[in-house]
Amino acid sequence: MALLLVLFLANILTLSQGSSQPAHVHRQIHLLRPQSGAGGDLVPGLSCLSWRLGVETNNIIGWKTIPQECEGYVGHYMLGKQYRKDSKAVADEAFLYAQSLKLPRDGKDVWIFDVDETTLSNLPYYAEHGFGVEPYNATLFNKWVMEGKAPALPESLKLYKKLLSLGIKAVFITGRAEDQRSITATNLKKVGFHSWEKLILKESSYSGKTSVGYKSNERKKLEKNGYKIVGNIGDQWSDLLGTYTGNRTFKLPDPMYYIS
Amino acid sequence: MALLLVLFLANILTLSQGSSQPAHVHRQIHLLRPQSGAGGDLVPGLSCLSWRLGVETNNIIGWKTIPQECEGYVGHYMLGKQYRKDSKAVADEAFLYAQSLKLPRDGKDVWIFDVDETTLSNLPYYAEHGFGVEPYNATLFNKWVMEGKAPALPESLKLYKKLLSLGIKAVFITGRAEDQRSITATNLKKVGFHSWEKLILKESSYSGKTSVGYKSNERKKLEKNGYKIVGNIGDQWSDLLGTYTGNRTFKLPDPMYYIS
Repeated sequence: MALLLVLFLANILTLSQGSSQPAHVHRQIHLLRPQSGAGGDLVPGLSCLSWRLGVETNNIIGWKTIPQECEGYVGHYMLGKQYRKDSKAVADEAFLYAQSLKLPRDGKDVWIFDVDETTLSNLPYYAEHGFGVEPYNATLFNKWVMEGKAPALPESLKLYKKLLSLGIKAVFITGRAEDQRSITATNLKKVGFHSWEKLILKESSYSGKTSVGYKSNERKKLEKNGYKIVGNIGDQWSDLLGTYTGNRTFKLPDPMYYIS
Repeated sequence: MALLLVLFLANILTLSQGSSQPAHVHRQIHLLRPQSGAGGDLVPGLSCLSWRLGVETNNIIGWKTIPQECEGYVGHYMLGKQYRKDSKAVADEAFLYAQSLKLPRDGKDVWIFDVDETTLSNLPYYAEHGFGVEPYNATLFNKWVMEGKAPALPESLKLYKKLLSLGIKAVFITGRAEDQRSITATNLKKVGFHSWEKLILKESSYSGKTSVGYKSNERKKLEKNGYKIVGNIGDQWSDLLGTYTGNRTFKLPDPMYYIS
């Protein structure tokens, strides 16, 4: 775990500085290895790479914890450069799409952002809790949320700023509860998400309902109120499926937890 | 390209024998490499791993060819073990799901299979055409199809057999044209897909329509005729999106081409 901590510190530096290593470092990767590298089969028959792809493509659903054998793999992925690169590829594609739109600039075009693992990163928390290998602990997680110390996801922050510059307004829809409104707003502003059209948190009336149902209903209300959802980005498929999903959706990586 | 050919021959052997290397070979993978291996950044700013993830998650859409810089990466992926493992993870998940269903065994439960890169593999063709780096050439590709020599995708064939054993019937819906019916049927049977409820090919009336539209309409007809689509598997998101998609969908990997 010592190496993971070193990587984590390196990652935190990258998160805050927004810098990346020079190109010559990238070129040291062995170009002709037939096998995709980090992690791999820790147990015969189980490929953590295939598990992660299965999760990201919504083939593997309804899981409560990551496979025990994949803790090291997921940890390295999250703390290494690939998570950042994968996030950048999504954000870049989202901006290319947004840029291609002919927008009326009537103040009604909105982009839906999820919060956790989309705009705010809980990696400092998950790095101390096995990257999803421990079952979700609401008490501990909410304690972390109430500290208001979650860093921004750097590529999402860049996307947010670029979308605002196109005249698109941000709407945050999060599974966080109403009683976390103040700390969530403070945390978002502190790390650079300074303005939004709406910050929608999960009211208690939705308790027991799925995230897909809650988020679909909130998006429906937006559309009924005259907003046009031009884009929608989240780390969970439940952010992107259902109804009123928006004109195009973007799935950020998250191999640490699953929300239905 | 010599190494690619060796890998290709090794892969063909794996395809026909259904064997895999012993576990100790897998364990030679460096477990602590922070960077996912094969391919990687050939051009600063472009990660072929991120590009592939973006494609598989439907973030990167509407592309005509793979990035030139990723030809080697995609080739190694397709001919190496990871493509097979990723396919196995999808097929295993699909079977777990199917097994969990309480089916009436009334002969009306069907599973939709796409053909190209889902049940039949065109890898021998694509290996000679840059793994998607060359623009699609209908003349050459149709010539290959008419040879009827496409091997089965081994994990899909296993899934097909297991689904039949559960009393689920197979329906193939393919973008191949009606005039390829005979060779497609022959090819499917030759490699082990011996029976089906329907083999649906694209009629000329659909020409110019999207695959999503064509496939949605054919699935609608099935449901109107009393069939229940319990599952749906394909390598393209256009196989799985639209309407009447089925109770659950499964996305097989395909980083070589995109069909909308």
